[in-house]
Amino acid sequence: MRSAIDVIRAKRDGQRLTDDQIDWVVDAYTRGEVADEQMSALAMAVLLNGMTSEETARWTAAMVASGETLALGGLPMPTVDKHSTGGVGDKITLPLTPLVAACGAAVPQLSGRGLGHTGGTLDKLESIPGWRASLTAEEVRAQLREVGAVICAATAGLAPADRKLYALRDVTGTVESVPLIASSIMSKKIAEGAESLVLDVKCGSGAFMKTLEQARELATTLVDIGAANGVRISALITDMSVPLGRAVGNALEVAESVDVLRGGGPTDVVELTVALAREMLQHAGVSDVDPAEVLADGRAHEVWREMIAAQGGDPDAELPQAQHRETITAPASGTLTRLDAYAVGLAAWRLGAGRARKEDAVDHAAGVVCLAKPGEQVVEGQPLLELHTDRPQALAAARDTLAPAYEISGADARSTPLIIEKVTANRS
Amino acid sequence: MRSAIDVIRAKRDGQRLTDDQIDWVVDAYTRGEVADEQMSALAMAVLLNGMTSEETARWTAAMVASGETLALGGLPMPTVDKHSTGGVGDKITLPLTPLVAACGAAVPQLSGRGLGHTGGTLDKLESIPGWRASLTAEEVRAQLREVGAVICAATAGLAPADRKLYALRDVTGTVESVPLIASSIMSKKIAEGAESLVLDVKCGSGAFMKTLEQARELATTLVDIGAANGVRISALITDMSVPLGRAVGNALEVAESVDVLRGGGPTDVVELTVALAREMLQHAGVSDVDPAEVLADGRAHEVWREMIAAQGGDPDAELPQAQHRETITAPASGTLTRLDAYAVGLAAWRLGAGRARKEDAVDHAAGVVCLAKPGEQVVEGQPLLELHTDRPQALAAARDTLAPAYEISGADARSTPLIIEKVTANRS
Repeated sequence: MRSAIDVIRAKRDGQRLTDDQIDWVVDAYTRGEVADEQMSALAMAVLLNGMTSEETARWTAAMVASGETLALGGLPMPTVDKHSTGGVGDKITLPLTPLVAACGAAVPQLSGRGLGHTGGTLDKLESIPGWRASLTAEEVRAQLREVGAVICAATAGLAPADRKLYALRDVTGTVESVPLIASSIMSKKIAEGAESLVLDVKCGSGAFMKTLEQARELATTLVDIGAANGVRISALITDMSVPLGRAVGNALEVAESVDVLRGGGPTDVVELTVALAREMLQHAGVSDVDPAEVLADGRAHEVWREMIAAQGGDPDAELPQAQHRETITAPASGTLTRLDAYAVGLAAWRLGAGRARKEDAVDHAAGVVCLAKPGEQVVEGQPLLELHTDRPQALAAARDTLAPAYEISGADARSTPLIIEKVTANRS
Repeated sequence: MRSAIDVIRAKRDGQRLTDDQIDWVVDAYTRGEVADEQMSALAMAVLLNGMTSEETARWTAAMVASGETLALGGLPMPTVDKHSTGGVGDKITLPLTPLVAACGAAVPQLSGRGLGHTGGTLDKLESIPGWRASLTAEEVRAQLREVGAVICAATAGLAPADRKLYALRDVTGTVESVPLIASSIMSKKIAEGAESLVLDVKCGSGAFMKTLEQARELATTLVDIGAANGVRISALITDMSVPLGRAVGNALEVAESVDVLRGGGPTDVVELTVALAREMLQHAGVSDVDPAEVLADGRAHEVWREMIAAQGGDPDAELPQAQHRETITAPASGTLTRLDAYAVGLAAWRLGAGRARKEDAVDHAAGVVCLAKPGEQVVEGQPLLELHTDRPQALAAARDTLAPAYEISGADARSTPLIIEKVTANRS
């Protein structure tokens, strides 16, 4: 006898759900046999009473089983993917995907759109004229075989239970549960079919996880789910108290990514791209190439051009530029000791780079360029931040948002390492 | 800015809800602006994180405000009501309502139907030919003026928020929350408009609250809500480990109630009826009559006859009788030391006295008569229990249910007092 009320009561009363209960409730919810009001009560009970590592892994597997999976078995090279929990200026997927492909592993990068102060990879790439995000499963497989790299939208058939549950959690105050967040992320990644996965778990003001403790909990949960479901997996916890790179905004981040692929670009973007590539290649069993070289010598850039062109984009096309630009200048001389990631992300969002509701469009040209980064010396009157927008009426609000976001001081900047720590699977 | 998500998050995170949040969320839910899936998540958060006495009182007031109230202001006598949390053989409302009216206070007893192993007052009275449960608010007021006593169904306009929320809790595993149970009970009673209220909180196997600790928590919560909403209120915690009286089943309980109103009947039914009447009359300020006398001398029976007739019932009509009767006899001689209320209620339900689903009909004649009660001496072969039913196929299951429900021993029966303790308002 299985009923939604029995499952809800079990979790409400602090019991561990059985595999059978989890499989049944996720499947029955996807089919509409378990009602939204029952699943939201269960989600609240999970949020407040938690799930064990085993329950969370099974819940994830049940969400994977609710839909189709992208079969990647027939490819001639290993497959490996990366997932970031999202941050401000986090364009790493753009240089990383072609870099790892250039090193010899296939990267099926199914990505999302941005909501709130963090950008979405698809929004960024859609600033390239002609580029399209939607591919069929067959197109994904063909492009992986031919180019080795795909960045595209998740197909609708992957983990439909997650899509339905995520929309429900969004309106019922049940988003902030680590087991539910982790199973949502991992169900999509496992359904996508990559053999290995490296996670970039962001930590700091610009990230969903504000503290190292929270980031560790999420990273551990994600890695445990992957390991329990047969994925080779590890996570890097990385700093998101400061924007990554200098560009924040869709086309601005594409341009910065191309700089990196051409052997230039900000050092933090290069450092993280190479570190994640090393981690991915290790899982994929590719040990004979150095990604730093492949990035520096232009091979990754070649794959980027092929990857963009394969999806209809023109890698040589000019990117959209904002009609209005203004700078914020340094009010004093000294060391820039702080530049708050959340505030910069929020300002870019206000300038048009992000969307308030799912159905909104983004302005591809809008954003913020950080002309100075923490640790750098600035002189009074020097431009610190450059605001790009097509909505001049938004400039005042963006300036207000940024006013308390930076500090210039005579002291040295406290330096946080970009890569804070690595989390590996206990059981793998 | 009020939103369902903010209210859910506040309770989820263990905060106290503000008066404004409570008023808004109950009203918006009644109007359909807060969705079922949001209210069920909130109900689960309330179940797991609790509500303070103040929150619970406010929640109740908001449910009262969601509908109309039965204005009883124009009556020439004080109004007082009783509510029982429900038990097996609990027919006390039947003799108590006319008794208190005969003593000089008006009793507007809005009652419910049974579900599960406990009976409903309306189901019992409907075994009287012609009697109707549904009255308009105007009919209730007129009958109170003329007879002083009404037992009828709650009108649909009273506390619609409670009706909607109760149906939701029923399917989302969120019934078992003392603040939600208490506010559900009290919202209907407060909307009914009586100035005073006495609660009979049952405790034991045949009650919803199995332990004295649980019964105390519920009684205290109920009394606090009433006091905070301006009702003169107290509660008696009474034993429900043994059926009340000898008759369990609709028509059987009406017949036993009439015995009590004629000055006879089982001593426990008389004792509790008189005790609750004393408590009610004290709240109503009626101090010059002794309810024991009014019950013994037939005055209460006169009001009973008027009350039944006023609602179309014939107080002299023969009650329905079951086609099949069987007895269970004592397997040994000794003292009957145990007779489990829950098992007797369940057996009566299986014989047709109760309903499994809200839409089912009850068999008015079905039930169980307890021919011996704990503490009484029995001899081997003497009838202990009499089963009444129109469904002979149900007899085997009822016998199975009753087999472990009683014990005969050489020892004396442990005697639990019928009235365990009284709970009064801290703040009144």
